[in-house]
Amino acid sequence: MATTIGADVGGTLLRAARFDDDMTMLERVERESLAEEGSDAVIDRLIELLQQVLPEDPDELAGVGVAVPGPLDSVNGIVLKTPNLPWRDVPLAQILGDALGYTVRLGNDADTAGLAEHRLGAGKGTRHMIYMTISTGIGGGIIDSGRLIIGGGLGGEVGHITVDPNGPQCGCGQFGHLESLASGTAIANIARQRLAAGAKSSLLDSVHGDLKKISAKTVGEAALAGDAFSIELVQEAGRYIGIGIASLMHLFNPERFVLGGGVTRIGDLLFDAIRQSAKDHVMHPRYAENTPIVPAELGKDVGLMGAAILVEAHEHG
Amino acid sequence: MATTIGADVGGTLLRAARFDDDMTMLERVERESLAEEGSDAVIDRLIELLQQVLPEDPDELAGVGVAVPGPLDSVNGIVLKTPNLPWRDVPLAQILGDALGYTVRLGNDADTAGLAEHRLGAGKGTRHMIYMTISTGIGGGIIDSGRLIIGGGLGGEVGHITVDPNGPQCGCGQFGHLESLASGTAIANIARQRLAAGAKSSLLDSVHGDLKKISAKTVGEAALAGDAFSIELVQEAGRYIGIGIASLMHLFNPERFVLGGGVTRIGDLLFDAIRQSAKDHVMHPRYAENTPIVPAELGKDVGLMGAAILVEAHEHG
Repeated sequence: MATTIGADVGGTLLRAARFDDDMTMLERVERESLAEEGSDAVIDRLIELLQQVLPEDPDELAGVGVAVPGPLDSVNGIVLKTPNLPWRDVPLAQILGDALGYTVRLGNDADTAGLAEHRLGAGKGTRHMIYMTISTGIGGGIIDSGRLIIGGGLGGEVGHITVDPNGPQCGCGQFGHLESLASGTAIANIARQRLAAGAKSSLLDSVHGDLKKISAKTVGEAALAGDAFSIELVQEAGRYIGIGIASLMHLFNPERFVLGGGVTRIGDLLFDAIRQSAKDHVMHPRYAENTPIVPAELGKDVGLMGAAILVEAHEHG
Repeated sequence: MATTIGADVGGTLLRAARFDDDMTMLERVERESLAEEGSDAVIDRLIELLQQVLPEDPDELAGVGVAVPGPLDSVNGIVLKTPNLPWRDVPLAQILGDALGYTVRLGNDADTAGLAEHRLGAGKGTRHMIYMTISTGIGGGIIDSGRLIIGGGLGGEVGHITVDPNGPQCGCGQFGHLESLASGTAIANIARQRLAAGAKSSLLDSVHGDLKKISAKTVGEAALAGDAFSIELVQEAGRYIGIGIASLMHLFNPERFVLGGGVTRIGDLLFDAIRQSAKDHVMHPRYAENTPIVPAELGKDVGLMGAAILVEAHEHG
């Protein structure tokens, strides 16, 4: 029986699991990332975690896949930078491979989540599918004809298409990228700015007037409770996501969009705004018709699962 | 010896040619489209033209590919709409196939041009390449791992990504698409508007004060002659194209961009603005480094060549 290992490196948690041929999870471990301890310390903790899930018989192991946030050179296994971890230009695949004695494949965590949703989740049965995660940032995993589209290794960054060149600064340093207008961080920032400028909202009561406590989650909750200010914020984010999706429809003409990440828990209020905006921005109705925009189905282990699928994709590729 | 036929349907001219295995052109014919005579008349003229280049021995023919402008359902061979021809939802592959007795493949003309530049032109030797044609409109042909990316058949429309949601109306009816800000039509429209509003430019002399005579070509000529007004217009168009290219770099991370179409004849003035803007809008320098943005190499027969390559791509796919 062949087994694969998938790991997911997050700013808060490191997770690792071993899977069998059918992608059934056999064993799963996690620990805190403790990013503040520095680059090498996080790598050491990750190596220890991976060693915990190695199979007893080394011949059983088909390979190790690791999902990492942020842009990376997945062909050469180099992490270019990570938003919540102290890694810059780290040849992580090589380091982990040397420590473990196995070939290690790196994947962007949104790409691996896309692979997992395509194989096991809301994208099952499609040939062409785009996964987007709307969370602290916005990431994506693009599947065309069953293959992950990453070009030279850095592709699939759907959060960094420019949707308004006059928009706010993005986490990446540029301006008006989708992520700067519709991520959880963006929603919270815009809420704070407008409230600081005197806008009225029940949101202020819920955080007891402390603007620092405002997050996309509090905005979403207030919106669902009927707060007009928050509803507008959610709909604006949805409009921008829909503009981005319309551009992706023109480029990829996929069969389905699968949207995950914390912000999508707002539900229909957000999804309806996204669907309307996508429809409003396509050049021909055919692009949006029969292209459902649906919630992701897999939970927090989606990155892990995708990392393991990444190994298999390379085996067959 | 296997031979393929490629045809290119334009608003002004219909072209057809027969190619051998090595894509050497064996015979080539063309005639006027005469779009004003209506949909059926254009189809009849196209059938006659294709019949002129059929090989004497029917067994020699591997297939017929036809390049068509505008969005089309290339999987089912249906032309959805064409900007300069009177076709709406025309099952052209079926109609031509029935008339000729061969299987006919349809391709968007920018997609087929992309295939040709990839195989025979400025994209030779790359695995991942994006072709863009900056002309009356803006079209594209996206190659990833040697394959044309069209998803369900309608993908590759790089001219219809939204680069500024507050931008002008696009030829397709939507707003702020790249085509509405940087195509030849857009450059001419913006020039006319600014001159009508009182802007000063040598361009006015060159068209003897007749704003209707202003085109992207006259703007380009005036820019190359040093007219500050025209230089600014070209640089603005280049800035928007660069914004679009930065988005495409984030999504596809290709090795090369190949830019063709009449507007690119402006040359370095335009290309330098495009290159600078792409660099200015990427999230990490790696996206733009080692990703040259170069002029197309094949001439006006690029669509014809690509249409023939389309046949072969299907044979091997």
